Amino acid sequence: MKFGVVIFPSKNLQDFANSYRKRYDPHYDLIPPHLTLLNAFDATEEDAREFAERLQQISRNANPFTLKTAKISSFHPVNNAIYLKVEPVEELLKLHAEIKKEFSEHRSDYAFVPHITIGQKLSNDEHSDVYGALRMTKINHEEAIDRFHLLYQLENGSWTVYETFRLGKE
Amino acid sequence: MKFGVVIFPSKNLQDFANSYRKRYDPHYDLIPPHLTLLNAFDATEEDAREFAERLQQISRNANPFTLKTAKISSFHPVNNAIYLKVEPVEELLKLHAEIKKEFSEHRSDYAFVPHITIGQKLSNDEHSDVYGALRMTKINHEEAIDRFHLLYQLENGSWTVYETFRLGKE
Repeated sequence: MKFGVVIFPSKNLQDFANSYRKRYDPHYDLIPPHLTLLNAFDATEEDAREFAERLQQISRNANPFTLKTAKISSFHPVNNAIYLKVEPVEELLKLHAEIKKEFSEHRSDYAFVPHITIGQKLSNDEHSDVYGALRMTKINHEEAIDRFHLLYQLENGSWTVYETFRLGKE
Repeated sequence: MKFGVVIFPSKNLQDFANSYRKRYDPHYDLIPPHLTLLNAFDATEEDAREFAERLQQISRNANPFTLKTAKISSFHPVNNAIYLKVEPVEELLKLHAEIKKEFSEHRSDYAFVPHITIGQKLSNDEHSDVYGALRMTKINHEEAIDRFHLLYQLENGSWTVYETFRLGKE
């Protein structure tokens, strides 16, 4: 089965992202809007407990931080995903680096670009239209992030939370 | 916004429930299969932190337990929901009672019948057909439950996990 590690932003930011995801993201029904800290990787259900312990340890030594978004960006031409760009503040980069190091056997080849996807798997024409309309939009938003989550995927592709980790907490 | 408190069973049991929910439960896309400990209630986003503290306290004094299912049942004629009946073991009843007491201002008028919904909002004919086919099915399943979750609802009706609580843990 697949596991992943994500941050869920506030309800307001999730509602905002969903207003686009509803039309432009085929994963809309499978997972709430999120910032991915560790991409999906395969492991067994029995591994969940140990993963949680490792993430708990990381979380204790991490700090809450301010999530800031300023604009909408795109991964085109690598892929046709459109996202809310999240400022790579030091605490977030450190949290990601610690998780990446601890789960190095499951590492991804992508560089870490903190983001919240609002559209993906778009055709080139759709991508041009949507990104063209959104690229100049200013999204000046800040919010406090004090937790992240370990998730696993069900057979239907949807994700369930296994455990929550509070940043800087025992 | 709405909050709720649930247990997510194992991936296997969720996959089993989803094989029915896909056809028979209009909430299929909104939340993974779950056992409700506290029905949806209204509060503000700022209340989440305090709710989490209260649930954390309850969780510390609770114990992991074995979730046992034996059969499929129905709430008909109260409503046309079909569910996996979960054995009302002492630890589960105690956990529910503690949450109900702590959140007494949000109490529900329903008696607590531990269950995992697999179909709901069915027409009378659908209900008769589906329940007729399933009522004699034996589901002899046991699994360990060691956590529960506080969730909140987004504007599109879907649910996001706010925090996880480990039974019997600090």
